[in-house]
Amino acid sequence: MRDFNVAELRKDFPILSQKVQNKALVYLDNAATTHKPNEVLDAMRNYHHMNNGNPHRGVHYLSVMATAAYEGAREKVKGFINARSSSEIIFTKNATESLNLIAYSYGMNFIEKGDEIVLCISEHHSDIVPWQQVAKAKGAVLKFMYLDSDYRLTMEEVKQKVTNRTKLVGIAQMSNVLGTIYPVKEIAAYAHSKGAVVLVDGAQSVPHIKVDVRDMDADFFAFSGHKMLGPMGIGVLYGKQELLEKMPPFLTGGDMIEFVEEQNTTFAELPFKFEAGTQNVEGAVGLSAAIDYLEDIGLNNIHAYEMELTAYAIKRMSENPHITIYGPKDLENRGGVISFSIEGCHPHDVSSILDSYGVAIRAGHHCAQPLMKFLGAPATSRASFYFYNTKEEVDVFIESLNTVRRWLGYGA
Amino acid sequence: MRDFNVAELRKDFPILSQKVQNKALVYLDNAATTHKPNEVLDAMRNYHHMNNGNPHRGVHYLSVMATAAYEGAREKVKGFINARSSSEIIFTKNATESLNLIAYSYGMNFIEKGDEIVLCISEHHSDIVPWQQVAKAKGAVLKFMYLDSDYRLTMEEVKQKVTNRTKLVGIAQMSNVLGTIYPVKEIAAYAHSKGAVVLVDGAQSVPHIKVDVRDMDADFFAFSGHKMLGPMGIGVLYGKQELLEKMPPFLTGGDMIEFVEEQNTTFAELPFKFEAGTQNVEGAVGLSAAIDYLEDIGLNNIHAYEMELTAYAIKRMSENPHITIYGPKDLENRGGVISFSIEGCHPHDVSSILDSYGVAIRAGHHCAQPLMKFLGAPATSRASFYFYNTKEEVDVFIESLNTVRRWLGYGA
Repeated sequence: MRDFNVAELRKDFPILSQKVQNKALVYLDNAATTHKPNEVLDAMRNYHHMNNGNPHRGVHYLSVMATAAYEGAREKVKGFINARSSSEIIFTKNATESLNLIAYSYGMNFIEKGDEIVLCISEHHSDIVPWQQVAKAKGAVLKFMYLDSDYRLTMEEVKQKVTNRTKLVGIAQMSNVLGTIYPVKEIAAYAHSKGAVVLVDGAQSVPHIKVDVRDMDADFFAFSGHKMLGPMGIGVLYGKQELLEKMPPFLTGGDMIEFVEEQNTTFAELPFKFEAGTQNVEGAVGLSAAIDYLEDIGLNNIHAYEMELTAYAIKRMSENPHITIYGPKDLENRGGVISFSIEGCHPHDVSSILDSYGVAIRAGHHCAQPLMKFLGAPATSRASFYFYNTKEEVDVFIESLNTVRRWLGYGA
Repeated sequence: MRDFNVAELRKDFPILSQKVQNKALVYLDNAATTHKPNEVLDAMRNYHHMNNGNPHRGVHYLSVMATAAYEGAREKVKGFINARSSSEIIFTKNATESLNLIAYSYGMNFIEKGDEIVLCISEHHSDIVPWQQVAKAKGAVLKFMYLDSDYRLTMEEVKQKVTNRTKLVGIAQMSNVLGTIYPVKEIAAYAHSKGAVVLVDGAQSVPHIKVDVRDMDADFFAFSGHKMLGPMGIGVLYGKQELLEKMPPFLTGGDMIEFVEEQNTTFAELPFKFEAGTQNVEGAVGLSAAIDYLEDIGLNNIHAYEMELTAYAIKRMSENPHITIYGPKDLENRGGVISFSIEGCHPHDVSSILDSYGVAIRAGHHCAQPLMKFLGAPATSRASFYFYNTKEEVDVFIESLNTVRRWLGYGA
């Protein structure tokens, strides 16, 4: 284990010492994407300098080395989320592809007319739109679970929506808008009692809290590398082996076949059945290095520190009477994502003004328009933390926020 | 333009000066994947040090920079293959995904029962298996065009197989096994006269010859970054705008939508309609740098030089009476891929023995089992050149080859 010393850790991220608009960069858009430490970039560069090859079917040295790098990354991911077997780890290009794989391969084949698909209203579009497609194609019913006034999903709501007709429940472990961490283990247990499978979108949780797919008993679990210090272009789908085995392939082509004749093909075993064509080996290498980095500082440390920043930010934001926060104000089962609005100010203007102070936050619907409609806010501003942020950065953020209304012509 | 000086160019590829089994690496597996010059690795590293962000919906500086990097790469690809519009350039994770996108979005929606899909027998599995899926789902007929004794596809064969019932013709511009460069422009003209659309798999051609999708009049054109000096995890689908516009989305989720309600979604314009979730921005940046590199030395120079190596290798291999070459022996409309067998020697043994000399070649079915059956060879060995290979490396390859039968116990 490495000491959790933010000043030291920041040295691994050269981009963080960049100036933006002549101001020190304050990067608070970590729910969109994170920066990569030198360790991750070096791992990929070393792969390119030493081991680059096309894995799996080659006999020669570089192909063997590339295979070892790729399959080593799969083992690393397996351990990181505590899967039973590396056959349950499918590499994809991003969490969205992982979710589409489930929709196309599981949804289109195991969900029938009249079956119910139940989603949380705060799902990201990537966990809504694919299910709309399945529901339309199969004549299934798409239902949504709504949140209470504290932006929480109660088990009462789960029990009202998940029925014996429910075939799949889809929920993010942590909302990318609200920061809410949902009780996915309890939800999974209830859904299983009704015979439904449970898909957990871990894109926002895996980077920030310790995840155990066996403990939560998710049937499917999806996440992306780039939100957890890894490169873009690599994502993961975990699936229980018995489910993945009965599912047909999604993408087809090289490397996922056993034997191809002109008219017929038999397919490879797991996990290769779901990995068609040349995979992103360097992406897997980068993701593996990102996992090493995260485990070296410790996910419990990361979460605890992010919640210190979040508590401080919420406290200071609450002192501004014009700010409304969309998300739980208590810190239990919450992550470091704060969505908010400033009275009378469009979120895009807020983000633009903060950019002039070097502060990077996101504005918009955050790929969650059904949630926005539920909240009654067409758009929000969103600040999202990672372990490399500092209390001083939160101060710059708050002080910048407190100038916004003045910029837009309101009185002080 | 940069001087075409191989010794100088090789300095950009540190991996090429590596020792393998205590021998200098001779990397002749370029049809599987290529190495990346420092220029490409530096472009990606600079992106990470200066511009990393999640593109498109962000207002802040890094998101704007990431958008510029990503859309700049799209413009670069557009120019490189001479597309009409950057709306016709869709980024995917690899050529296989590009081909699956066409199969799912075009094939599943515009090919009907009794329609014919016509493929070349030398297609890669990635251009066969997706069409088997479409044919099965839709009740369409899958037909193959066969090669003549010189491993060429004649227009007579094309005219016999492509009929008024043909809805799609799929062909690689260059075979990854035989090295044959097919007359795709002539094939496209004939297919269009019959009302079929033409899909060209450019994975093996784009890295080696100048490609002009408008001149060849391909309706769809697919390729991968990693076979042309770019990173893994990035691929391209070119499609004519009028076709892409009428096709439904393939992967769905964030960034490809216009408006999402609980039950319905409207989709974004091209090219975003086909790009769901966070894309591989750094991969696009690397691909763009790879294009700069290739254009700087010139694709005509690259092809001419590779054909010098190929001519020399074929000449020297032909001197060994135990070697059979599968592919055209004349150099016109041919690329630098040489598949072969050595009498009495299994291709895997050939590759293993060459590996002990530091020589990397591939052995197996090369993801083209229907072609292997057509050739009557369950597997072949394959050497494939790139511009960074040298005549001296060809000598090492040939001399190593000439020891193989002795290693395996045959007389000299």
